[in-house]
Amino acid sequence: MSLTGAYDEANVFAKILRGELPAVKVFEDDEVLCFMDVFPQTRGHMLVISKTSKARNILEAEPKPLGRLIGAVQKASRAVTAALKPDGVVVTQFNGEAAGQTVYHLHFHVIPRWAGQPAGRHADTMADVEELKATAAEIAAAL
Amino acid sequence: MSLTGAYDEANVFAKILRGELPAVKVFEDDEVLCFMDVFPQTRGHMLVISKTSKARNILEAEPKPLGRLIGAVQKASRAVTAALKPDGVVVTQFNGEAAGQTVYHLHFHVIPRWAGQPAGRHADTMADVEELKATAAEIAAAL
Repeated sequence: MSLTGAYDEANVFAKILRGELPAVKVFEDDEVLCFMDVFPQTRGHMLVISKTSKARNILEAEPKPLGRLIGAVQKASRAVTAALKPDGVVVTQFNGEAAGQTVYHLHFHVIPRWAGQPAGRHADTMADVEELKATAAEIAAAL
Repeated sequence: MSLTGAYDEANVFAKILRGELPAVKVFEDDEVLCFMDVFPQTRGHMLVISKTSKARNILEAEPKPLGRLIGAVQKASRAVTAALKPDGVVVTQFNGEAAGQTVYHLHFHVIPRWAGQPAGRHADTMADVEELKATAAEIAAAL
């Protein structure tokens, strides 16, 4: 998929935002949603998306939603650090298939890392939903 | 290095900001600096840092510098897309050694990607400075 094009209302995150697909939420407000990645690279891997923007990638983002998003990325990073005590946190944001983007609704990954524990490849294994819910609750408790 | 600790004024980016080390700049203003990574993973690999914040990572960032930073990341992403016509752009931000952070001044990587061309490992090879300057000029011309 190209870096320019029309927003597809049938993308997975649009469906989550419309309540047509489930998500294990960590926190949300009127503008942003943070939820667990169902194909986590490590325990605690979260996604942060805008509820108000139809930007497919960072190139298209409007200033206000982008500012809200990075604030929510920081909030998620702080919460997972407090809750799960990782040694590091990776933040990634992919634009275009060649960059690894698979869902065309602008999103940031927040991925806790532990020394000596390699991260899994994204999308290898779907996580157990009950485990995701337990981890989300741990992270949310640290907000 | 831990996710918490004191800012080290001797870090490489602090030296660049003080003019004690050179950098191949793409753009800057009073609050942010975008410059070429000297160990590029692909042609056009840039770094974006705050000039005003002493945050070592995203956990420590103050709201205003963080907002300015992500705006500058967007600006760099748009310029490199216009200039070098990549198929994708990867944005990464590492917190802590376990996450791949090597310089403890908050920074974002902006890395253009081309389909079928794997990115090099970071820090494998130092780039030729004249080539970096030529690429920076190409990108800056698209601002």
